[in-house]
Amino acid sequence: MNDHGLSYFEDYLLGATYECGSVSIDQASIIAFAKEFDPQPFHVDPAAAAAGPYGGLIASGWHTAALVMRLLVENYLAAESSLGSAGLDELRWPHPVRPGDTLRVRATVVESRRSVSKPDRGIVKTMVEAANTDGATVMRATAINFVLVRPDPGA
Amino acid sequence: MNDHGLSYFEDYLLGATYECGSVSIDQASIIAFAKEFDPQPFHVDPAAAAAGPYGGLIASGWHTAALVMRLLVENYLAAESSLGSAGLDELRWPHPVRPGDTLRVRATVVESRRSVSKPDRGIVKTMVEAANTDGATVMRATAINFVLVRPDPGA
Repeated sequence: MNDHGLSYFEDYLLGATYECGSVSIDQASIIAFAKEFDPQPFHVDPAAAAAGPYGGLIASGWHTAALVMRLLVENYLAAESSLGSAGLDELRWPHPVRPGDTLRVRATVVESRRSVSKPDRGIVKTMVEAANTDGATVMRATAINFVLVRPDPGA
Repeated sequence: MNDHGLSYFEDYLLGATYECGSVSIDQASIIAFAKEFDPQPFHVDPAAAAAGPYGGLIASGWHTAALVMRLLVENYLAAESSLGSAGLDELRWPHPVRPGDTLRVRATVVESRRSVSKPDRGIVKTMVEAANTDGATVMRATAINFVLVRPDPGA
């Protein structure tokens, strides 16, 4: 069970919102991630980035997504019931993430239904939002997760 | 200009498909990525993963996405025109990625239009697909990218 008391599918109630903590990002980690996975000039080269479309270095959206995931694993998904994800709908990066930013993550249950084909689990859809300290949304997506139902104590 | 001859918005023609190379993934890198960003048992703990829902260790979907991005930067997006991404629609991980897998990535232009509000660029939508050597699709998404139009030589 995580700090929000979420443990099994039945605990993810439609409309419930959970604050999932925050994470800071610095220039060195932005560059290191992007050199490995997304080596575009505005992610890896401060001088080129300064002259580029964002007027400075910004984080790869995949870096932002990975940092958001960490907070979801720590504060939203429960180790005893999380069966992984089918994917996400409408993943968006509406505002750039810059060195020194701190991102706050929030998860809201927007759909919750039992699986018809696999009765041991449910499908939870979650609106995930990350915002910087100015309140600008830097990432938004609807995640689709498979979550075990609570075990039958009589089974 | 990249190896496919893609340089500016005008080069991304509706329906064109580009092979973007391949990438292999080993157990050590799966665990290292997941310990940092997605520390769920089936991504970081081989023994727990063997007893878990996938019968073995699998890569974080975010790791797969990041590796796919690398190939898109190297073989599809062009440094002189790529302005970043608004996000992706229908990101899916239909089949797990396991240690030792080699993923082949393909990009198909599914929409291409000039921006109305910003005439220096266009919006390119791309169906991105990654498959393993058995031909199973391990990731699929529609990426939305902003791409500079070819500079006017008379300007």
